[in-house]
Amino acid sequence: MYEFSFQNPTRIEFGIDKEKNIGQYMKEFGAKKVVIIFGSDRIKESGLFDLVTTNLSKNGIEFTECGKIKSNPVLSKVREGIEIAKKFSADSVLSIGGGSCLDSAKAIAAGSLYEGDVWDFFTGTAVTKALKIFDIMTLAATGSEMNNGSVVTNEETKQKYPIHGFSLFPKVSVINPKLQTTISRDYLVYSAADIIAHSIEGYFTASVQPELINLQVEANIKTVIRTTEILLQNPNNLDARGEFAWAATLALNGLTYLGTAGFSYPNHMIEHAMSAIYDVPHGAGLSVVIPAWMTWYQDRNPKQFQRFAKEIFDLSTAEQGIEALRAWFNKIGTPTTLRQLNIDEHNLELIIDNATQNAIDWQMHDIYNHQVIATILNLAK
Amino acid sequence: MYEFSFQNPTRIEFGIDKEKNIGQYMKEFGAKKVVIIFGSDRIKESGLFDLVTTNLSKNGIEFTECGKIKSNPVLSKVREGIEIAKKFSADSVLSIGGGSCLDSAKAIAAGSLYEGDVWDFFTGTAVTKALKIFDIMTLAATGSEMNNGSVVTNEETKQKYPIHGFSLFPKVSVINPKLQTTISRDYLVYSAADIIAHSIEGYFTASVQPELINLQVEANIKTVIRTTEILLQNPNNLDARGEFAWAATLALNGLTYLGTAGFSYPNHMIEHAMSAIYDVPHGAGLSVVIPAWMTWYQDRNPKQFQRFAKEIFDLSTAEQGIEALRAWFNKIGTPTTLRQLNIDEHNLELIIDNATQNAIDWQMHDIYNHQVIATILNLAK
Repeated sequence: MYEFSFQNPTRIEFGIDKEKNIGQYMKEFGAKKVVIIFGSDRIKESGLFDLVTTNLSKNGIEFTECGKIKSNPVLSKVREGIEIAKKFSADSVLSIGGGSCLDSAKAIAAGSLYEGDVWDFFTGTAVTKALKIFDIMTLAATGSEMNNGSVVTNEETKQKYPIHGFSLFPKVSVINPKLQTTISRDYLVYSAADIIAHSIEGYFTASVQPELINLQVEANIKTVIRTTEILLQNPNNLDARGEFAWAATLALNGLTYLGTAGFSYPNHMIEHAMSAIYDVPHGAGLSVVIPAWMTWYQDRNPKQFQRFAKEIFDLSTAEQGIEALRAWFNKIGTPTTLRQLNIDEHNLELIIDNATQNAIDWQMHDIYNHQVIATILNLAK
Repeated sequence: MYEFSFQNPTRIEFGIDKEKNIGQYMKEFGAKKVVIIFGSDRIKESGLFDLVTTNLSKNGIEFTECGKIKSNPVLSKVREGIEIAKKFSADSVLSIGGGSCLDSAKAIAAGSLYEGDVWDFFTGTAVTKALKIFDIMTLAATGSEMNNGSVVTNEETKQKYPIHGFSLFPKVSVINPKLQTTISRDYLVYSAADIIAHSIEGYFTASVQPELINLQVEANIKTVIRTTEILLQNPNNLDARGEFAWAATLALNGLTYLGTAGFSYPNHMIEHAMSAIYDVPHGAGLSVVIPAWMTWYQDRNPKQFQRFAKEIFDLSTAEQGIEALRAWFNKIGTPTTLRQLNIDEHNLELIIDNATQNAIDWQMHDIYNHQVIATILNLAK
């Protein structure tokens, strides 16, 4: 095992109706003035917004709001949120939504305590402090609820880049499986692809990968596959919804990367280019990239690909494992070709260029040059 | 999945030579005056004590010491440590040793900020504050390095009881696999039994046990079995030593109990009686209790026992799984009979009485009355 430092201070409040106590949780951390970050007005129509703000008021917490966060959250909106937070003298942010809301909230939290422009953090400036971060997850996929990362797209430069920092760990994350029963069929299967992506990036690319970590990653993948199939049949199965959500958290809260070394995120690197330019759902982009990347990459780590085939699908060869995953994506209805995403030849070239720049900025250019990325994306046609 | 709250703030510093930075880690948490808690003088002979204290001094941290902690740590020694800590006006404790040292350190940390007698905590008083807790683990088994529990034996009343409290989470735990290469063959296999015990208590007894948790528990058990066999051949295999240590931590840091409900610790409840009276090594006592308890308990959860047989040993029936675990304990050389622990009929009765009292105090008496405990222990003769 490789050496590591690990600390994950986020408190998880998991269970039905836990969001009803959000004000109390926030009060325990000294929150007094909060910006509520959310997407569409559905949370107002459903009564969730009222329920939350009533509890905030009861606990003496003032609030203002910043709505209309979109999937693939954008820098301009983050800047708008920072203005709101500064004007309100907020000490906290509360995201009510999925990973896009929470990632926006994290960037707003960091930018609100910074003199310069928030994009500086995405291009090298260290995040050293942030407003207190809280969230109520209405969709499980990104794992942002228990990690210190955030991904935002700069619409002007077409860069979809991440930031990290200890202060970006949420103080409290509420995961109520029942709140997640309303997500659409499409977003359920895109989320499944996202969690599988988080699981396999390290699993296939790490040069040091302890057996214990392999078993943990496989536990998460098996859980996502099993619970997705249950949820497609019955979206209201709360046990499956809960396990799906918890597997999403575990896939990217740091645990499955402990003691590993030399890993990278090639599927995310390529997909970020796709959604930065084409605004495709992140998970849908990933399910297109993954089988193509696996086909291209398998010979670099043949034993691990064979193991994947055996452990996940009870099949014998690397190739069979890749085909089984592609078939499973097709079966649940998340795309596996660029054509399904309506990405044509012209845009393909733009995506290759953008991904090549990502590879340089993320220091993955030793393997992923323009030609390699083109080869992978051509496998996804 | 059942509802849960989870927060585990402990920072893990895992890797070769990490103990050389202990003063720096402690300084980050504001430590200035520390009591070093340890067992035998071996850590002085090996140079570890000097290395640590040199680094403490370099970071401006004063220290005093409390040595001679034994396995199955005792209340009298904890009281002695509290006297030392109070006299020294310590703000921190640093355990250098295994679970017994750390559990003593935790009790000392809690008792040092309490007016009354520390045993009060073990009989119902809540632990609300404690000195800052740090540790360097020289043996992996108890998981105490990343949880909020401690177990101490009251020698007068023959009670081996636990305490819990958020302030008992260590601030920083150092796990250096190399420091753990010196433990004896015997203590390695007792530790393996202890980790398996932590894994199976919930796995077999929980009334709500999500599939994802099953997979995680099985990952830990498989890892312990595999790495123990490697370490018996080659005690200096640092990869195996590291995975063994990390599986020990994961088995009792809370993760494998999330979303579960209705579990209990019957093997620990009975073993605590054995080591309270007979001072047997905790892991050795557990490897005696476990196969007997499994034989008695299996019909209450037959599917889970069958699953255990299949997943861990690739066998078909519950009975075969139990026999395979017993055989594995025999193979690695940890005892499976009371006779091997030199416990005779007379003492057996004392143990049954003591365990029956544990069952009452731990609210497990609905199942574990005097007769049931006698039946289980008679299966261990």
